[in-house]
Amino acid sequence: MKEIYLDNSATTRVCESAAKKALELMTNIYGNPSSLHSKGLEAQHETDNARRIIADSLGAKPGEIYFTSGGTEANNTAVFGAAHALKRRGNRIVTTAIEHSSVFEAMQQLEKEGFEVVYLNPDSSGCVRPEDIRAAINKDTILVSIMAVNNELGSIQPIQSVYRAIAVAGAPALFHVDAVQAYMKMPMIPKKLGIDLLSVSGHKIHAPKGVGALYVRKGARILPLHFGGMQEQKLRPGTEAAPLICAMGQAVSCFDKNESVRIKELNLYFRQRLSEIEGIVFNSDEKCLPYIINLSLPGLRSETLLHFLAERNIFVSSGSACAKGHKSHVLEAMGYDALRADSALRISFSDENSSEDADIIVNNLKIAVSTLARR
Amino acid sequence: MKEIYLDNSATTRVCESAAKKALELMTNIYGNPSSLHSKGLEAQHETDNARRIIADSLGAKPGEIYFTSGGTEANNTAVFGAAHALKRRGNRIVTTAIEHSSVFEAMQQLEKEGFEVVYLNPDSSGCVRPEDIRAAINKDTILVSIMAVNNELGSIQPIQSVYRAIAVAGAPALFHVDAVQAYMKMPMIPKKLGIDLLSVSGHKIHAPKGVGALYVRKGARILPLHFGGMQEQKLRPGTEAAPLICAMGQAVSCFDKNESVRIKELNLYFRQRLSEIEGIVFNSDEKCLPYIINLSLPGLRSETLLHFLAERNIFVSSGSACAKGHKSHVLEAMGYDALRADSALRISFSDENSSEDADIIVNNLKIAVSTLARR
Repeated sequence: MKEIYLDNSATTRVCESAAKKALELMTNIYGNPSSLHSKGLEAQHETDNARRIIADSLGAKPGEIYFTSGGTEANNTAVFGAAHALKRRGNRIVTTAIEHSSVFEAMQQLEKEGFEVVYLNPDSSGCVRPEDIRAAINKDTILVSIMAVNNELGSIQPIQSVYRAIAVAGAPALFHVDAVQAYMKMPMIPKKLGIDLLSVSGHKIHAPKGVGALYVRKGARILPLHFGGMQEQKLRPGTEAAPLICAMGQAVSCFDKNESVRIKELNLYFRQRLSEIEGIVFNSDEKCLPYIINLSLPGLRSETLLHFLAERNIFVSSGSACAKGHKSHVLEAMGYDALRADSALRISFSDENSSEDADIIVNNLKIAVSTLARR
Repeated sequence: MKEIYLDNSATTRVCESAAKKALELMTNIYGNPSSLHSKGLEAQHETDNARRIIADSLGAKPGEIYFTSGGTEANNTAVFGAAHALKRRGNRIVTTAIEHSSVFEAMQQLEKEGFEVVYLNPDSSGCVRPEDIRAAINKDTILVSIMAVNNELGSIQPIQSVYRAIAVAGAPALFHVDAVQAYMKMPMIPKKLGIDLLSVSGHKIHAPKGVGALYVRKGARILPLHFGGMQEQKLRPGTEAAPLICAMGQAVSCFDKNESVRIKELNLYFRQRLSEIEGIVFNSDEKCLPYIINLSLPGLRSETLLHFLAERNIFVSSGSACAKGHKSHVLEAMGYDALRADSALRISFSDENSSEDADIIVNNLKIAVSTLARR
């Protein structure tokens, strides 16, 4: 039975060339990039090259890219690093109620430390409102952290309105964007958007799990979360995970720049076919990032559907993998009733998916609707 | 020209079976271990298996093993996690002046936060004294952090005397051991030594860079450094770096248990041959872990020697890779004069080295001694 993997926002398969690169760095160019000898230097050249590739992809300078162990660490470093660096200049932080847990839980921690955190609620399309952002930022605001694309819905947040709102308020705030779901899938040039800090992850774009990066605008100062050696300009010490860093560089460099056009078409085909299913409700609207379709089949529980599909070798998600089956705080913030929230499924694409996958999942969901017991 | 890699305490080559495992998890068993479907579960089974292997290697339970991005993060998590968890029970921390930078710099940070940190100096053999440990721990002590094996010298620290010293003092202290250089190379069973927290790293034992683990004794409570998803019992959230974790499990499971016997013989042969070199001084004595020989050729600068050897495809270190050529705080704490400290070289072994490597490095060091200009 053909495997149909439609959970690419949870993680992706590592592409062949990235895997090959990781292997090369594990068994051949295996020196420690911080070693002073040529065996170390050749590894450092490789990580430098990866850094340049990631920097280019963000219209940034290599010195603005700091490798981390993934999106969670990048988000934590940005949020804690900015809040702690600027705590003498203000006490207010503005974020949304639909951030990934690695921003959300960091914010809850900052509240315990005494910071005032404002969580903006989304509208019915899953986006926070520019006017709410403007109203929330005052001159006491030291950090604004808003995700580019929500991981459960694919809803694109109005991050282009933040920079001006900070300026108008005369706030000392740094602006952080969790771009884990957006990276490589939509234009994302921090400099153009006035973004100071931006988090990306490797394993959402066919690089291995265990690597991510934080963009820190030259001149923006944040405090480190980790202490130790001289690596990553001391912002993120520890032996560089060279095989993963270089695999991420490779994955980015071979990411097809026209992929999003094809994914948009695929998304339209999926939506059209999915519409045939009785009772289906789309939670993602057409303005969402085309890589994600969130839908509900009210009356059928997400987990039941997910396992029904998995038995047929079709893999989707009921929400964020990081939440491991717990209630979605995103759908809750959207104000969905239990019937709709508890039957949500997330379908998420990569370049490995095709329209045939749509036909197969739709046929199976039709069977599910007609055979599974409703609660 | 044959490559002679004698910098295995900086990093090792990933063994074939670990690299193969990483590759399998990258391209085949690529699900997110936290995904609820079977594609996620199969990845979780793999990481569970790796966790069991690492736990077994430490005589611990799988639930006591928390994967991190490496030794630095494991050390940081232990040191900050313990200090912050116990800050209401005391203010004193006891450590040594020869810890790795990931403990040392974390301690400096804790001093800034108001903790009192006692740094024990080593004796002439590079070991702190049990009596100094006993004298330093009082009932206000909340953390004792002492490395098992020093990374520059290989000197084995008297960690077996810590547990009793804590008990005698009636201290609430947690006991942390940085076992990065010791792991798999000498017996290391935390339970037998009364260790609460123990850090290990993958890339020192033929697993890839980017993964390590922290042992946390069941019942010991520390605060997390990272906030986010449900992974690693919430102590270390973020998508599990499954390819690296499983590669580490593989590297541990195929680590030859008799290797240290062979390395001891190799060490003796190296020492015997190295003794032929005019003016050589051994900084590591015979009681050091046999995987490391630190030596000085007073009058010849470490960096000059290191590059001289590297040009001949022989790779050694001048100190810790994480210090990237900066002065060694370890040799400084030992009270070495500049002439001896500035000419230190670290040779470090793995199972890939042979007695032939000794012959070649000794011949080349003899040439260095007779041809390089002394300062």
